[in-house]
Amino acid sequence: MTLIQADNYGPWTVSLGSSREPYLQILQSELYAELQRLFSLRGGLVFQGRFDNMLAVTNGISVEDHTEIQERVCQLFPITLSMGVGAGKHPTEAQLNATGALQTKGSSRNEKRRRILAVEGLLESINEGFVQIAHVDVNDVTKLTDSISAYDAYVAMLNVHEALAKEFLQVNSLVFFAGGDNFLVISNGLTEDQHREVLSRVSGEAGLEMKAGIGVTRTATEALELASKALDSIRSNRQEMLTTPFLATQLESRL
Amino acid sequence: MTLIQADNYGPWTVSLGSSREPYLQILQSELYAELQRLFSLRGGLVFQGRFDNMLAVTNGISVEDHTEIQERVCQLFPITLSMGVGAGKHPTEAQLNATGALQTKGSSRNEKRRRILAVEGLLESINEGFVQIAHVDVNDVTKLTDSISAYDAYVAMLNVHEALAKEFLQVNSLVFFAGGDNFLVISNGLTEDQHREVLSRVSGEAGLEMKAGIGVTRTATEALELASKALDSIRSNRQEMLTTPFLATQLESRL
Amino acid sequence: MTLIQADNYGPWTVSLGSSREPYLQILQSELYAELQRLFSLRGGLVFQGRFDNMLAVTNGISVEDHTEIQERVCQLFPITLSMGVGAGKHPTEAQLNATGALQTKGSSRNEKRRRILAVEGLLESINEGFVQIAHVDVNDVTKLTDSISAYDAYVAMLNVHEALAKEFLQVNSLVFFAGGDNFLVISNGLTEDQHREVLSRVSGEAGLEMKAGIGVTRTATEALELASKALDSIRSNRQEMLTTPFLATQLESRL
Amino acid sequence: MTLIQADNYGPWTVSLGSSREPYLQILQSELYAELQRLFSLRGGLVFQGRFDNMLAVTNGISVEDHTEIQERVCQLFPITLSMGVGAGKHPTEAQLNATGALQTKGSSRNEKRRRILAVEGLLESINEGFVQIAHVDVNDVTKLTDSISAYDAYVAMLNVHEALAKEFLQVNSLVFFAGGDNFLVISNGLTEDQHREVLSRVSGEAGLEMKAGIGVTRTATEALELASKALDSIRSNRQEMLTTPFLATQLESRL
Repeated sequence: MTLIQADNYGPWTVSLGSSREPYLQILQSELYAELQRLFSLRGGLVFQGRFDNMLAVTNGISVEDHTEIQERVCQLFPITLSMGVGAGKHPTEAQLNATGALQTKGSSRNEKRRRILAVEGLLESINEGFVQIAHVDVNDVTKLTDSISAYDAYVAMLNVHEALAKEFLQVNSLVFFAGGDNFLVISNGLTEDQHREVLSRVSGEAGLEMKAGIGVTRTATEALELASKALDSIRSNRQEMLTTPFLATQLESRL
Repeated sequence: MTLIQADNYGPWTVSLGSSREPYLQILQSELYAELQRLFSLRGGLVFQGRFDNMLAVTNGISVEDHTEIQERVCQLFPITLSMGVGAGKHPTEAQLNATGALQTKGSSRNEKRRRILAVEGLLESINEGFVQIAHVDVNDVTKLTDSISAYDAYVAMLNVHEALAKEFLQVNSLVFFAGGDNFLVISNGLTEDQHREVLSRVSGEAGLEMKAGIGVTRTATEALELASKALDSIRSNRQEMLTTPFLATQLESRL
Repeated sequence: MTLIQADNYGPWTVSLGSSREPYLQILQSELYAELQRLFSLRGGLVFQGRFDNMLAVTNGISVEDHTEIQERVCQLFPITLSMGVGAGKHPTEAQLNATGALQTKGSSRNEKRRRILAVEGLLESINEGFVQIAHVDVNDVTKLTDSISAYDAYVAMLNVHEALAKEFLQVNSLVFFAGGDNFLVISNGLTEDQHREVLSRVSGEAGLEMKAGIGVTRTATEALELASKALDSIRSNRQEMLTTPFLATQLESRL
Repeated sequence: MTLIQADNYGPWTVSLGSSREPYLQILQSELYAELQRLFSLRGGLVFQGRFDNMLAVTNGISVEDHTEIQERVCQLFPITLSMGVGAGKHPTEAQLNATGALQTKGSSRNEKRRRILAVEGLLESINEGFVQIAHVDVNDVTKLTDSISAYDAYVAMLNVHEALAKEFLQVNSLVFFAGGDNFLVISNGLTEDQHREVLSRVSGEAGLEMKAGIGVTRTATEALELASKALDSIRSNRQEMLTTPFLATQLESRL
């Protein structure tokens, strides 16, 4: 995994003056969109995280690719990015190592630390690693959208996010929000049953039913594609949903 | 406030096939960025929310402006947007009325419901309404960024968000994440003391100190500018922070 | 009119290294798109020109607005912009004065000249000035598109552009390409008959028939809207086109 | 080469109403930027052309890649694209074949013709083809920028473009404007001497000195990188420029 960190971002934003916020939101969204383009066209996936610190699944993406992406972003945006790259036995360890690699190079607020690429571990070979992603959604979220207030529906998703994050962290998996009622879970090493257990607990807490497609293969974009395919196949199979009232999962592997 | 809802979005995304997700993330970010441009250049502010349902503070923005924004988005994006506009005594009521206005026009998944503009209430006159926004941040978040893992820091902000949302909802105020350690609160009607009470409770729960600049005036962008100015002035006044160990607030009004 | 010039752009591009070009093309397009957003939402219009030097019609746009636009661009892009603003009896004089205002502030390659706003003349009052724009297109260009090669059709439009530029310059008017077979002419002071004479000469040289809608009012976006409306009305009136084989023009004024 | 054509674009633009133009300019720029991203990250290069019809050098880019690009654009934009792909002995023939492939599938204004991918010839194998690109610029263009009006400098570049297009077409090469004083020439099969002859003629006509870096290799982005590298090396070697007053060329090959 790769940690993408804007260099000295906080002080820079304050230097823009007090009218900065609306266009900072635009900058952050455009920066994320550009990074998603640059990584996903190479098989990776980026998650927004805190915007000034984003995490990416980057199996199969070389050091040269990372450097090229840093260059392209500097060419389009007024900020520079540093990156830490790490591998691990499971997702939490991989991002911990990625973070650690960058932290040893100086503070995020050190104005002299610019465009660092710190590599702790990198799984370039196609045989060294794999990615497992679960694409989770909430059943019948349209009922919420069409009945409760937009803010209440938003907070409901925030609570689901928080519950998913807490439960999946117990099994070393990382949860990100993908819009609407969609969540993406980096879950290398988790069985389909373990996904069901976690989702079952969260469904109980949140009072909402869920389903998940799970994909596992060599790159992040392909794993997500398999996961979305599995999720769509659950969606189109209403019978299965009737017999699994709380949740349905399906796993596709291309290893 | 205005609810901005993508028409029939879920079914459309599924129709794109299983490789859709990376570019859907790009679409959602670009759509948000465009809406933020179109609203903020007219004095409004948009928040990402669930991406397929976004909330905006739109005091002073006319029905014609809303229609123009709907047209421009249809010209740039492959989806259409419906909007509900509502006013209320406080932010929660305004967004509830905005949601209600749109809900009466049909389901978000009704493929025949397209480009609706449903107006429940609109405060066009400069004398009818005002906006109050608090710009909140977490003290010394760099310490987190530079020491714990990127995912743990992200989850920490998620927890702060959830706690802020829960507490501010008690006083009819709406909380949105703005990246990094920044939160924006629509808090019309709340006193500076009420902000301190809420932030104090959240600080206690989360174990993190916070501060807030509060701005109140006729439009959202100006209220946020005042809020950011107040926040920056707290930041540059380290003495004040030493004497208010848990939180500092400052209010600027231009009514 | 306003000249928008990227500061020290050439040396900066070379500093990016030899792999710079594909993303420079992206940068230049994104920069133009952002400027068009920022100016057109205030009633102005920007033309791409040479990309590192763009001209804009900015009647009614204040000095403060220009400064705000400079700030927003610095917040989104890795370059800074300087601007010269000028007025004149006709479009060529206005852009000459705008250029002259900036040229007195130092060379475009002076790396110390940054974010200059040089105002030679500015028509802020709604009563001081007006904008006239002609929206020109080539009749039945689809026949070209569907029969000759894409490059030949492109060169045909390039030749039309060159001929239009040469002829309209004789009457102090400025021509810009707007994609497809569309050209926009800033033609303050020209009568409808003068437009017909120029277009007739160019039609003869180029062997292509043309038509034009002309709009005149207080701001650039509104003048263009009137011009496009007039052009569409010619398009929908096939009879008129039959009786004016070489060209048709129509003028709409809202002064 | 690949011709990229917006389906039924003219009628669609008219359907947007008469206020369409400013945001159409934005759409066209964003569409070009997205296509440049999608092709250049796969080794191709796109040129703006007429915006509704763009030409791309696509050696090494597969049919599947073309389809994927069509899908991604449909996901981000409100229009669909058709493409024709062709190969040839020289650039003019390649684009003619690409155009012909698409023209046989129906008119650009046929509203039922959508997302066609018509392949006349495709050089997928790395051994079948190569790309040669010349990166041309005008010497000391800053003198123009800093002395004559912005519009006159723009028209000067337009005239250079037209002269280059006319002369290079004689030797089956294609010329595109790349901003500032930069032109890109697809010149497969031309020797360095032939480049010098053409540039010498244009320099004489235009009264402007020029130089060119030429790159030849397997993909468009790499050929352009070599060309820019050669151009930069001329720029940094002032002595060479003094001894070649009218023009300097340099060729780099990686075949």
